This record gives sequence, structure tokens and C-alpha cells, in this order.
Amino acid sequence: MNQHMQAVRLHEIGGPENLRIEQTPRPEPGAGEVLVRLRAAAFNRRDVFITQGLYPGIKLPVTLGSDGAGMLESTGAEVVIDPMLGWGDDPDVWDAKGSSVLGMPHDGTFAEYVAVPAGNVHPKPPSLTMEEAAAIPLAGLTAYRATFTRAALRAGETILIPGVGGGVQTFVLLFAKKIGARAIVTSGDDAKLERAKEMGADVCINYKTTPDWHKEARAAGPIDVVVDSSGGDTLAKAIDAVRPGGRIAIYGGTTAAANVKLFPLFWKHVTIFGTSMGSPQDFRAMLALFDGSIKPALDKVFPFEEATAAAQRMASSQQFGKIVLRIS
Amino acid sequence: MNQHMQAVRLHEIGGPENLRIEQTPRPEPGAGEVLVRLRAAAFNRRDVFITQGLYPGIKLPVTLGSDGAGMLESTGAEVVIDPMLGWGDDPDVWDAKGSSVLGMPHDGTFAEYVAVPAGNVHPKPPSLTMEEAAAIPLAGLTAYRATFTRAALRAGETILIPGVGGGVQTFVLLFAKKIGARAIVTSGDDAKLERAKEMGADVCINYKTTPDWHKEARAAGPIDVVVDSSGGDTLAKAIDAVRPGGRIAIYGGTTAAANVKLFPLFWKHVTIFGTSMGSPQDFRAMLALFDGSIKPALDKVFPFEEATAAAQRMASSQQFGKIVLRIS
Repeated sequence: MNQHMQAVRLHEIGGPENLRIEQTPRPEPGAGEVLVRLRAAAFNRRDVFITQGLYPGIKLPVTLGSDGAGMLESTGAEVVIDPMLGWGDDPDVWDAKGSSVLGMPHDGTFAEYVAVPAGNVHPKPPSLTMEEAAAIPLAGLTAYRATFTRAALRAGETILIPGVGGGVQTFVLLFAKKIGARAIVTSGDDAKLERAKEMGADVCINYKTTPDWHKEARAAGPIDVVVDSSGGDTLAKAIDAVRPGGRIAIYGGTTAAANVKLFPLFWKHVTIFGTSMGSPQDFRAMLALFDGSIKPALDKVFPFEEATAAAQRMASSQQFGKIVLRIS
Repeated sequence: MNQHMQAVRLHEIGGPENLRIEQTPRPEPGAGEVLVRLRAAAFNRRDVFITQGLYPGIKLPVTLGSDGAGMLESTGAEVVIDPMLGWGDDPDVWDAKGSSVLGMPHDGTFAEYVAVPAGNVHPKPPSLTMEEAAAIPLAGLTAYRATFTRAALRAGETILIPGVGGGVQTFVLLFAKKIGARAIVTSGDDAKLERAKEMGADVCINYKTTPDWHKEARAAGPIDVVVDSSGGDTLAKAIDAVRPGGRIAIYGGTTAAANVKLFPLFWKHVTIFGTSMGSPQDFRAMLALFDGSIKPALDKVFPFEEATAAAQRMASSQQFGKIVLRIS
């Protein structure tokens, strides 16, 4: 008997407004997969990029969504889902051919049910609500790998976090403060800087009113680590701002290319770590940080029926922290 | 009584032809320094850049030369000189303020005598002649740190060495083959490729006749490591050529800036290591590779009186391996 469910589906490229809530068959778990009844999901920029056609290898139609938390259909255990599918055996890099991110091409979490590999479900940290747990996976994983596995931030060091409003950057700030690092953050929005300050940011700089923000950050340093995704001009300024021997992790780039001055790169012995998503080891280590002392920053929780409005808020970049979808 | 010596001095910026051989006072060792009677010295691009005014913080007049081998004046012991002065306590990065390279502002090795800190002289590897030992220091140190301390090349891996003719790149090739790595090299000059092949290069590509050399190199891969100093277009192609999870060490840049595509950088989890010179630990580990099984590639040995001709050959980029000055 074929059971159905509600899901947020994309049939055609064209932007967040193309998302449709519709009846679709409930997924049948394949070999090695488990069925999760979702209670909450969360948005990532990736979901919006896919609706806009700005992601490699898009296959439609698809149920979007990488982040989710819920109950195992078989046992009722509360779980959170690692969205990195098929990372592979090498902790240094994913399997470029065999891996993918949950929510395209594999149907994702914007639905009542999702089928995922058994190894991708982990016990939900007991201190978190379903909405909070759903907010963690992709952004928390990306932030953890960039900050610790790649840039190796340590207690007592100073990290620069440009553009602190976005999902990943708020996790970088959360984790940096959790381990006892000092955080310098930037944003073009004073309200976001205020939120970052409440989360423990030590130095807040508005890059719109302070065009030479990198010099101000450097003066507030020395900066050991930069974690950035904005690329372009920001990467060039990060190389300038970081201390000799400093480390820069780049997990994305809203601009296609960056003009990098080579002299400060080699003269200062700077290291640039490209990174994306994270390994199963990264996911477990990241989840362990949620020991009751920290909670993810939530921007807003939308009911399932308002998925398009949630995606539009994501596209507008107005948010601070994660945009969550309550499913049931 | 003030003793004199012959030295190759630069009084004015203007190119290699401004070098003058002249009588100058023999250096008096300062506190913690030793006097070395030089038998041979070697050229680096740095020496030419200084004559051309293309180096930060030039102070004149000066005796140029970073590389040298000779005898301790006090004991007659045969030594080779580590040209990195005042690296500091952190093996990850030099002391940006307290460090410098021998041969400006500290008078260098293009002379009959040089005074250097006692910690900077090391026993000459017994298997090498004075000319060979003098050829090693700056380029060998830079190559060792870039290849091993930074990019962590291991036996069985494949390294791409663009522009193999230069001093550092020939050491990268020498060391890579010494530890059992596979080497893909490029040059615009078939004669240099032939020399590289004799040194053990596994794949040789002429980048002038093969404009898409990075694609050919990638096809001959997978490439684990790239060590490069040419920057610009080459860095962009290196990011394209290297395997997912690959490492790129950059120790210089003949172009001021590089246009770096960010997507392959983070999507492939590439790491870029800026590096320059090397620590005392790097120097000792590098010297230990000269255990009798390898010798540095020498381009040509000039008599002391022909220092200007030697510098002009360096400036012309015709050489393969090191240009050496025989002092006595």
C-alpha cells in the first residue's frame, strides 16, 4: 500500500516562489536506510541557490531540505540527521564522485518523512528542542570543520568572523566562544552586531560605516584565524588582517573569484584552507559541543505551510541565525 | 689592526651590472657570531631583485649573497651556512620583525669572509664539494619547508613542479625523488625538461607548446601536491590541476596578484600554504637529506672575478640549477 505525505517540492528553476507544498509518496527506505518522521527542518542558502539554478548538477523534481530532526519511525528515538551523504573513507576530503548533500538529488527534509542511511542519524542532544536540533546540521557541520578540523582554532586564540549574520557564521561564533576563543565579528547591520554581542562577540565592526574594517580588526588582533565565505574582496582583506602564521578557512564564495595578493600570503606564511560540509567524524564532534551549555541561534520558526515565505526570508539575507520549518 | 678582504658590493640600485668587486674591511664577529672563510657562494633570485630595487627594505651599500660554504676561521671545520637569521621560537612562522636573510642588510657571502651567528653554521655534508654545499642553503631550505613542512609530501604521492629550471624548483624535484614521490614537471624549455628527466622527473610537459599543460598534468595525476612560485595564472591552474584534498605550497610570486577561483578551492577542499625560507629545524632536516645519495643540480661555476656575469646569467633565467661563485 503506497502511503503519501506532504512535502515542499521544486519542479522548475525560478526562485523560492516556485516551491510547492504537495502530496507525494512517502519514501521507501532502501538497503541500509532508515525512515525518519520529521518534526522540524531548517533552511540553508543552498536551498535558495537550487531554486535559483545556482548550484551544480541540479536534478528536478526534488524535495529540498538538508537539515532535519525527528523520530525514527521504527523505534521512536529522537534523532538529528547528518546531511552529508557518502563522504567516503578519507577524513581529509569527501569522495568527489560518490558523495552528495541531502536535499538534491536525494529527497530532503522539507517533508513529513525522509529516508536516509542509518549511519546518518544521531541521537538528538537532549538539551535541544526539535526546532533547535533541526537548525544545526549543515551549518554546524560546515562551521565545525572550517573552524576546528581545518583552521584548528584553539582556546585563547582570536578569530575574525566576517558577515556574522549567516547560518554558518553564527555557528562559528557559537563554537569559538564555547571553546574559549576571542571573536571579532563584522556585519553591515548594527542589529546583527547587537545579536552577535549577546552571543559573546568581543569586538563588533560595521563594515558599511567602516570601509577599512580589516585594519580596525587587525588593530584589535592579533588575529590567528579567519573563517569566511564571502570571498573576493573579503579574502584579500582577510590575508591582510591575519597575523603572520595565521590560518584562513574558506567554505564558500558568493563571488566567483578573488584577487589574491601573493606577497603577504607567502611572506606571512598564511595558510588558506578550502572546505565544504564535513566528515562523519566532524559531525559527531560537532554534536558533542551541544552539551547543554550552548544553543544554536534561531532567526524565526515558520509553520510548514509557509515554506515559501521562509525561503524568501532566507533569500533576503535579513536573518540572524537559522530559519526553521516546524513540520508537526 | 684592520684586515681587508675582497667582496662583491652593491652601492646603487640599477641591476646586476652595478655589482663591484672591491676591498672592504674584513667583518668583525659580534657577540655570538663566528667568522667563516668562504670557499664558495651561490646566487639566488633575491640577489638580482635587490640589485634591481625589487625587494622590501633595501639598505645600501651591502655585500650581497645568502648562500655560502667554507671553513670556520677559528677551527678550520668545514661548514655550510643557514642564511635565515633570527627566525625566532615559533616553528610555524618567522619572527616578522626580528628576522632577516643573510646578504642584506647583514653583509653576505659574496666575499672572502662572513660573520654569522654561531647557530647558523652546520657541518658540511661530507659527500658534497664546497661548490655543491654552497649551492644548497637558501633554495634547499625554501624547497624543504614548502614541500615537507608545509605541503607534507609523502613517498608514493605525486607532486607537480611548474617551472622546474629555477633554483628552488630543482631542489623540490631532487627532494621529491629522494623520498620516493612521483614528479610531474613543466618548463618552457625542452633542454631544461631533459635535465629534469635525468634527475628523475616522471612526466615532463613543455608549457609553451602545451598551453593547457594543467589539464595534461591532471590527466597524468592524480596530483597530491603542487609547489609553485610563479603565481598568477599558474596558481589558478594549480588549483584546477590538483586532486580533491590536494595541497599547494606557494613560496613566492613573480606576479603581484593571482585571480583565484573560489569554487574549486573549497569544493575540492584544497589547502594553500604560503611559505618563505624555513626554520632552523627545517634547515637541519634538509641538510640530513644529503646523505651521499643525492647532489644539488649545478648550472655553472664562475670564478669570483666574474660575479657580475654570474648575476647576469641569473637575471636571464637561462640556468638549470644553481649558479655558483668559487671564492678560493
